[in-house]
Amino acid sequence: MNIGIIGLGLMGGSLAKALKKYYIAEKIYGYARSEKSKTEIEELNLVDELVDIKTIKEKCDLIVLAIPVDNIISMIPQFLDINEKTTIMDLGSTKEFIIENVPSSIRKNFIAAHPMTGTEKSGPKAAIDDLYEGKTVVLCNLEDNDNLHVNRAFKIFQEIGMRIVVMDANEHDVHACYMSHLPHAISFSLANTVMSREDPKSIIALAAGGFKDMSRVAKSSPKMWSDIFKQNRKNLLNAIDQFEIQMKEVRDMVENEKYEDLKKWMRKANSLHEIL
Amino acid sequence: MNIGIIGLGLMGGSLAKALKKYYIAEKIYGYARSEKSKTEIEELNLVDELVDIKTIKEKCDLIVLAIPVDNIISMIPQFLDINEKTTIMDLGSTKEFIIENVPSSIRKNFIAAHPMTGTEKSGPKAAIDDLYEGKTVVLCNLEDNDNLHVNRAFKIFQEIGMRIVVMDANEHDVHACYMSHLPHAISFSLANTVMSREDPKSIIALAAGGFKDMSRVAKSSPKMWSDIFKQNRKNLLNAIDQFEIQMKEVRDMVENEKYEDLKKWMRKANSLHEIL
Repeated sequence: MNIGIIGLGLMGGSLAKALKKYYIAEKIYGYARSEKSKTEIEELNLVDELVDIKTIKEKCDLIVLAIPVDNIISMIPQFLDINEKTTIMDLGSTKEFIIENVPSSIRKNFIAAHPMTGTEKSGPKAAIDDLYEGKTVVLCNLEDNDNLHVNRAFKIFQEIGMRIVVMDANEHDVHACYMSHLPHAISFSLANTVMSREDPKSIIALAAGGFKDMSRVAKSSPKMWSDIFKQNRKNLLNAIDQFEIQMKEVRDMVENEKYEDLKKWMRKANSLHEIL
Repeated sequence: MNIGIIGLGLMGGSLAKALKKYYIAEKIYGYARSEKSKTEIEELNLVDELVDIKTIKEKCDLIVLAIPVDNIISMIPQFLDINEKTTIMDLGSTKEFIIENVPSSIRKNFIAAHPMTGTEKSGPKAAIDDLYEGKTVVLCNLEDNDNLHVNRAFKIFQEIGMRIVVMDANEHDVHACYMSHLPHAISFSLANTVMSREDPKSIIALAAGGFKDMSRVAKSSPKMWSDIFKQNRKNLLNAIDQFEIQMKEVRDMVENEKYEDLKKWMRKANSLHEIL
């Protein structure tokens, strides 16, 4: 099987590395837009050959879109003429809006996947060969896909060591919002709060585990994340409102010195222990 | 030098382990209140001998209070009769309120220290021998202490591999609030938000790096953290207000679809890269 990867940053580059590691593809073709990325991809030897979209469509059994979610939407028209045996798959963090934008003529070929993994880094140099191992990938609305394409997706994700969860796109977007998009919004806010109030010297001197962990994802790509916030806008606004209820609650308990209530509220949060 | 440690949970137990690892104390005495803790401390062999407070005062050159910040306040009266050559030191996460509560008769002996380290775990079993290594300890208002005690504190923290930062207690409480207390309040809020909206099955299936990292400290001890929130109440309320300005900003940008502004705001958060 020949596999083409559009975009070879953290997600696409790591996929290329995993496919190589497990000898899954006969040949891996890659496509990147910028000259800087192309140079890095070649230096890192991420793919067998960097080609244009036309060649990818001709040569590949599976084409993976590993680009920001808005770019997925704008690229779809270029794949309207793919062969019915060619699988096309996106790895975006939002699913409903993307699926709505896949024309019915290629809907059977189009696998909507979201690997729940990542780091705060981006670009070809961020690619690592074990990004996907032991992690979960969510596949959405598979009832719209042909079996050939579903089986291909299952096979590949299993071979690179992922747990597969199948779910409705709408449901996915709500869960991904609480488990990933909301935490990112909070982390960006925390980082901006601290940087507006604290000088770099104190930050470096006093950053302990808590802040370091909680601000890590605030280093993530603005292009990637503003696209995600845009495509999952309604769910994100809801999730922020839910989070703000909790922030108001802790503020009120501290302001009104209700420390027994505060302990009870913290104990509720502690029960996460039993889950994660 | 004999060292006595009051409270042998994460902080005190880890200190005992570090002191043993580097052969710093001739003998380590310990004090714990509950029978359960005493059994665990003995099983883990954390100290040379578990004794009462009276024995600790008689035998030790340095007495370390490694207990929740409200318990530090309530224990201070038991140390009013210590010898002028005995150092007493607390490891609490707040400093101003504690120093205000140290009577002038023992103020020269009392070293106010805050090691900026920890994990979400608590109790004797949480103790690890490298908790302090490479981390920062803040020492406050040293101008009120006798040199004997200051030198002792410096020597010990250096020997267990810590970076020492000296600072005014008031200044410490503001920094510790932004770098540690606010992140904890946010993490508890995020955990409670997710647990009120998501079922355990989805949490375990979909928890990726972002949420896992950001909810980790929400597993911390409610007793310890409600005490800290109480003692640093004014700074925490301010810090929450500052954070809420950022949360409101991101919500407004998403609601009003100002994605260019959103990217700019995210890029500001990205600059944390250059510091941490």
